[in-house]
This record gives sequence, structure tokens and C-alpha cells, in this order.
Amino acid sequence: MMSAYADLERRFKRIGVLREAAGMLQWDTATVMPKGGAGVRGEQLAALQRTCHEFLTDAPMSDLLDEAKLETGLDDWQSANLREMHRAWMHASALDGALVEALTRARLACEMVWREARPANDFARAVPRLKELLARVREVAAAKAEKLNRPPYEALLDEYEPGFTTQRIDALFEELAKTLPDILGRVLAGQQALPPPVAPQGPFPVPAQRALCERLMRQLGFDFDSGRLDVSLHPFCGGVPEDIRITTRFEEADFARSLMGVLHETGHALYEKGLPHAWRHQPVGEARGMALHESQSLLVEMLACRGRAFLDFAAPLMRAAFGGTGPAWEPENLHRLAIRVAPGFIRVDADEITYPMHVILRYRLERDMIAGSLAVEDLPAAWNAGMQELLGITPPDDTRGCLQDIHWYDGAWGYFPTYTLGALCAAQLFDTALAAVPDIPGAIRRGDFAPLLGWLRAHVHSKGSLLMTEALIQQATGKPLGTEAFRRHLERRYLS
Amino acid sequence: MMSAYADLERRFKRIGVLREAAGMLQWDTATVMPKGGAGVRGEQLAALQRTCHEFLTDAPMSDLLDEAKLETGLDDWQSANLREMHRAWMHASALDGALVEALTRARLACEMVWREARPANDFARAVPRLKELLARVREVAAAKAEKLNRPPYEALLDEYEPGFTTQRIDALFEELAKTLPDILGRVLAGQQALPPPVAPQGPFPVPAQRALCERLMRQLGFDFDSGRLDVSLHPFCGGVPEDIRITTRFEEADFARSLMGVLHETGHALYEKGLPHAWRHQPVGEARGMALHESQSLLVEMLACRGRAFLDFAAPLMRAAFGGTGPAWEPENLHRLAIRVAPGFIRVDADEITYPMHVILRYRLERDMIAGSLAVEDLPAAWNAGMQELLGITPPDDTRGCLQDIHWYDGAWGYFPTYTLGALCAAQLFDTALAAVPDIPGAIRRGDFAPLLGWLRAHVHSKGSLLMTEALIQQATGKPLGTEAFRRHLERRYLS
Repeated sequence: MMSAYADLERRFKRIGVLREAAGMLQWDTATVMPKGGAGVRGEQLAALQRTCHEFLTDAPMSDLLDEAKLETGLDDWQSANLREMHRAWMHASALDGALVEALTRARLACEMVWREARPANDFARAVPRLKELLARVREVAAAKAEKLNRPPYEALLDEYEPGFTTQRIDALFEELAKTLPDILGRVLAGQQALPPPVAPQGPFPVPAQRALCERLMRQLGFDFDSGRLDVSLHPFCGGVPEDIRITTRFEEADFARSLMGVLHETGHALYEKGLPHAWRHQPVGEARGMALHESQSLLVEMLACRGRAFLDFAAPLMRAAFGGTGPAWEPENLHRLAIRVAPGFIRVDADEITYPMHVILRYRLERDMIAGSLAVEDLPAAWNAGMQELLGITPPDDTRGCLQDIHWYDGAWGYFPTYTLGALCAAQLFDTALAAVPDIPGAIRRGDFAPLLGWLRAHVHSKGSLLMTEALIQQATGKPLGTEAFRRHLERRYLS
Repeated sequence: MMSAYADLERRFKRIGVLREAAGMLQWDTATVMPKGGAGVRGEQLAALQRTCHEFLTDAPMSDLLDEAKLETGLDDWQSANLREMHRAWMHASALDGALVEALTRARLACEMVWREARPANDFARAVPRLKELLARVREVAAAKAEKLNRPPYEALLDEYEPGFTTQRIDALFEELAKTLPDILGRVLAGQQALPPPVAPQGPFPVPAQRALCERLMRQLGFDFDSGRLDVSLHPFCGGVPEDIRITTRFEEADFARSLMGVLHETGHALYEKGLPHAWRHQPVGEARGMALHESQSLLVEMLACRGRAFLDFAAPLMRAAFGGTGPAWEPENLHRLAIRVAPGFIRVDADEITYPMHVILRYRLERDMIAGSLAVEDLPAAWNAGMQELLGITPPDDTRGCLQDIHWYDGAWGYFPTYTLGALCAAQLFDTALAAVPDIPGAIRRGDFAPLLGWLRAHVHSKGSLLMTEALIQQATGKPLGTEAFRRHLERRYLS
């Protein structure tokens, strides 16, 4: 007879596989689906969601989890797998099937409206769907709060980044809020004292941009036999480790924005690719959480690819891709462009120093929305006031304000803090990697990412969800997660 | 309390939606998936297949079907829906979950090998996977034969085209085998007596070909807000009525081949789009069967678009698309090219007169393979001997022989006869439509497909699976299905 634990592995494998099928359909929705397909796609995703939810909350599941906990002889990975199974079960069994299905439908309906409302700067158009979606998400938060015995907002956060509390996040974010304005002021003053870097002049034809992106993705270790690069409104990294689907959006006037976005998503892709194959389709084989996922993309984009060493390697390739001439294409100039600091409206275009301010704004607003103290109708005003307070600027329209990010319109409240937690993890991990493998910058200057990737594979990727995020950081870096490495990185890069 | 019939509708809806999700992933597999994704895609499709199979064979299903049959007050559509539910249940409950999953895996594995073996002319490479797949399909045939109390081959055929027997097919095919050689001989002689038509000279750039295809798809009534045109090795029409995914393959040297293929798939698409919306996601709302499906594509491609009226409309558009000049671009010449008859190796390129010979060959071979009297290793020799017997030609390689079609490599034994049954249905339906709406040719000459489409919507598309195929043909045309209309069409087009 099959042990309870073995039975759980079998059940979770099917759930994992069906979830990945849904993920592929989400890629399709964002990249190729004609708009007429939205309704029936919603049905497909809802049916898959409901089916997975039923399999996860099937009558025997609770007993199997209890029985498996009494089994002896489980090794560390199996025990961690069981812990993750239990966590998934707790999240799922907090919700009934009708709520799961209503949530999936509300997400799709709202996202489709957002796709039109954002370019049209028409927040009012999105309001009814967003209210409906927020109402569903607040139901979810309340149900999970009761089950997990945690505050509603933390119950949502736990789905993206397990183990973190708002207290812990508040502490880290407070340190940042104390440190960053001073750094920002000094960096802006320093920038002003120098002549500005020269922007290469476009247009940069999309086919050439795509070829350059693919060239550099390969250089970083991305394998096009097990992945693709496509176009979508909001860039993401989807798919599965064997078939990773990165997306970007190209603009003829600016190649760097898309390129840096692609390198960012490549960091996500390399993490997925490096997850422990032996634990494929099991909860412990999945990425640890969104903070660590973001740490891998930021480490690749911000710490490695916006560094001088990488640009020494990449500048000639960029110049050749577009037939560029003149001083704009010198590595030093491209590096200065890549690390240019300027408070701006758009989170995804923000530099490393102002980015946390964007996150802190969203974190505050989404906590208030979940608490019920901020209504959807009041979001644009609250957003603009927050931008003024945190960065001293007011968006001229909602397209560059509260319509810019897909997250809430896709139901993802509780996700935003993971970006800045990821930045802190990235800096601390990169610091440790450089100390452990001193050749990393030299290798990157030659276009060789193997030493960096090797260290990340060993200390982060291959761990899957064996450890909680903070334990993984402690083990990999020898220190608890903090803001210190991030602050030192900023000072080194921008103020030395 | 929900009636048994209502409960069945609810259950079948979920199954229908999940099947469509799987269909979308099949589109992805054929069009965009990198090869590394094949293994895990196999897992996804197998898990979806197994899940649908479990839902379809769930313990309560048999009782619900029995109970629903006793319900009074079901209207014609509900009764037909129940009949189709029962048929689907019979097919599914004949197989256990392990066999369904093994079949799905074997299909994907074999198809992936075929994708490489076909261009490489390497049948030997495909043999192990094809043997494995045939073994699984024969298990399926045996299990269904017992459940349906029909011969194994008919049990497979029933899945694609319910209601037909091999006896009925043999009778129709025998009539064709008697009539066609004589017609073919006279047509070839007539062709030889005239100077040959002039082929437009390429290259025909792919973007221009794509634009022309899309232009003519629109003209026929295809809506790009609810569908796409993409590229795959073997053209197909997939997706769902709200999001129809047509594929083709473009060749720079020949635009007509791809264009006619696209118009063919557009015929399939228009059928799907015209299915009864009120019965969406119910068995009775689905296309009746593959013969009728093929009748719709052949009617559009062969009877309408290869006709002189359509080419009067389309010739100037073709000329403009490629900047063509000279007599090659005259409607009369393009029409003569479109109906050129020549025995050839490739089924999908065959003319209307020789096409049935291709089908008869495959029908014979696949019956023998299912009967166990033809081994996979002996297929190339049997294929080539059959081609020699039926068309007097021998393929120079397996790429143009037994490797050319995806069907068997995808597990579809029992499908081929539906092509020629479809041709018979198409001719009989078109005949009736022309008699009922005399303006159809005139409208087509103006590029207006609405009169033809209107008749097809009313008499074919909107019927879904309300009637069995032969009953639908009887009702729509006033006659039983026969070879008469097809023969008269050939004589009218080629010998008058």
C-alpha cells in the first residue's frame, strides 16, 4: 500500500501539472489571444482553478497530511515538501470553490478592462471591475486570516512570500525610508555636477532589438530550446523550467528599456531553470517565494548587467546591433545612462534608489484597501498624494499613476513588498558571491556568466523551497536579511 | 433539487471547457512551443485528459444518464444532448484512466519524433514510437469494440464520425472507385489537348502572402477579433468558436498552395463559429463529426474558392499583393491552375479527382494496421504498392509517402475516410444551396459570401449535433447521402 506521504506526492504532482497548464494559458492570454477569446479563456482558467482547488481540498487530503506527519524516515526534503503541502492546503481549504471561481472570473474581467483603460487614461472605466475584484480579494483575505490566524493583509502576503510579517517589513522599509532620501539627494547633486550622459539616438528597429535581446539572453545562459521571448503589454516571465516564456515590449525610440527588462526577466528564468529537477512538480521544488524570485532578476539586471563590467562586454554588441557611432556608445557613457537616477512616475522604469519609494507607496495603499479604509474611487487621489510625499512629484495622469501596474487589476494585493525585499536579498547575495568567487566581475567583463550562475545555482536555485526565505539568506550569506548590503551597494555604485 | 439532466449539463460543461483548454495547449505545441517543452507538455495534456476522463466516468455518471432518460419534458435539443452525452460516456467508460494517459503520452512522443523524421525522410526513426502508439490504439479499439458491440475499426471511426459503418463506407467508396478512373482519364486527356496554364513566378514574400490570406479570410467572414492565423508544420483549425486558431505553412515559391489551405481552414472556422451558441460547451452544441466538418472546408475551398466566380473576384487582389503582371494573373488562367488535375504523391496537394484515391489507400492500410495484418515496419512498402495500384505512381521517398500525414503519428486511426465522406457531403450541400439561393455565384463574384454562408448557417452550422450526419444531409438536401452530386460536380467543372 502507498504511504500517506507518497499518496500526497502523487496528488500534488497532478495539481502542479494542471497549474502549469493554466500558466501556459495565461501566457497565451497576455501575448497572442484575440480579444474575443477573453470570455471563454476566463471559463477555462476558472475551470482549471476550480479543479485544482477541488483536488487540493479533496476529502482525504486533510487525513493524508495528518498521517504523513506521523511517518518516520522522511528526509529533510520530504519534510520540507510536507510543510509546503500543508501550507498550500491551508491556503486552499480556507476558500470554498465558489469563491475561487468568482475570484478567477473577477480577475480576468478586470484585467481585460485594464488593458483598455490604461492606454486610454480612463480609470473610471476600470472602477466597477476593480471594486468587484477588491471585494472578492477582501473575502479571500478574511477567510485566510481566520484559517491562518494572521491579519488579513499578511494572509494575502503569505501566498507570495511566506514567513514575512508586516512588522518585519515595516522595520526594513523604515530603515530604507530613513537612509534613501539622503543618498538620493547626494546622488542627484553629484549627477548635476557632471555633464549628462549622451543618449544614443534611435529609431532602433524592433528586429534588431529582438536579436540583441536574444544574443544577450544566450550569453547569460538562457536556452532557446527550452524557452521563448515574446511581446506583451506587461512584461513577465512565465511558462515552466523546460519551456520558459519571457515577454517584453519593444519601443523604437529606446532600446535600453526593453533590453534591461529582458535581462531582468532572464534572471527570473535562470532561477526557474535552476530549481531542483528531482523535485519537479512538488511544492518543495518550486521557487521559494516572490522576494527571492525578484532577488534573482534584480541581481542579474541591476547588480550585474547595469554594472560597468557587463557594459564593457555589451557596449560593442549594442553599437553593432544598431550601427551606432560616436561617444554615446562608449561603455562609460552607457554605464552612466544605465545607472542614471531620477525620480519618475513609472515603477518599472525607476532606478534602484527611488524604486523602494514606489513600493512603499503601493504597500501603504494596498494595506489600506484591504483594511477597507481606502475606497477604489479614492485611489487616484491617494496615489498622487503619496507620490508627492515620497518622491516630490505628481503624476499628470492615471496612465502614469494608479493605472500603470497590472497587479491590483489582476487581483494581486500583497505582492508589491516582495520587490523591495527582493532588492535587499539581491544585494546581500551578490556581496557574498563576489567575496566567495572573486573572478565574477572579470568573467562578466568577458561575457561569461558561468561563475556567477554557478554560485547562484548552488546557494539559491537548487534549494527550491527547502528553506524559508530568511533561513536561506542566513545560510547563503551567513547573516540575517538586512538593508546594509543594499545601502553599501548604492554608496559604492553612486557615491564613490 | 437539480434534475439528473441538469446535473449532467453542469458536469459536461466543465468537461467541455477543460477539453478546450487542452485544445489551446495543442495549438501552442504545434505553433510556438520550443522542443524542450515537449516532455512537460505531454504531462500537461495527459493530466488534463485523465482529469476529463475521470469526470466523464465518475461514479454518479452512469446513474445520472439512466435517470435522465426517464425524465419527461426534454425537448429535441435536450434529448439529442442526452444521446451525445451517452455516446461520449460509452467511449470514455470503455477505457480506464491508465490507458487514456498512456495513449496521450504515446501520441505526443510519436508526434514529436514525426516532426523530425518527416523532413529527414527517416521512417526508421519513427518506427519505435509509432509501434508503441499503434499498440495503445489497438488496445483502445479492442476495449471500445467490446463496449459498443462493433468491430474494432468501426469503434475508432465512431469517435470521429458517429453512425457510419465500414459497410456503408465501402459501398460509397466502391462507387467512387468505379467512376473516378474514367473521369480522371478523360480530364487528363482534355488537359493535354490544351496549352498548359502559366504559373505566376515568385518569389512571393511571406508578409505579402500573409496579408493576402488575411484579406481573403475577412472576405469570407472570418473575424480577427475572435481568431488568428499562425504557422505550423501541418495546417489545422483549432481553438474555440470565440478564438479560432487557423494555421498554415508559407512557401516563398508558391502562394496558391498556402492560400488555398487557408481558405480550406477558414471553412472549418466558419462552421465552428456558426455552431449553436445556446448549446455552447454541451455535446449537442459541438460539430457533428469530421465528415461534416470536412464538408464545410471543402465546400469553401474546392467548390467556392477554386470556382471561376471567386477567382474573378480574387485574381486582381492576388496580382496586387505580389505586384504581378502578364497573362499568368488572368482569372481564367488562375482558375485553370486551381483546378489542374495530376496524380501526385501528396494528399493535401491533391486535386478533387485524385484525392479520394489517397483516402482509399489510407483507409485500407489503417484497417489492416488495426486488424493486425499490417505491421508498422511494413508500412512503407504497402504504402508504395498501394500508390502504384491506385494512382500508378510510386513515391520516391517516405517524406512524400507514409511520413506525409500527421494522423497516425498523432494516434488518429479511423479519421481518413471522413475526408472523402466530407467531399460527398460538400457537393450535395452546395448543389442544394445553389438551387435554393440562385444568387450565390453572382455574390461570390462580388466577394460577397453572405448568401452562401447564410444558407450553411441555417442548414448545417446551427444544427450542431442535433441530427446524425446522414439525417442532416437528408434534411438539408432532401436526398440520402450519395456520390451523384460529387460526380456531377466533377463532370460540370472538368468535362463541360
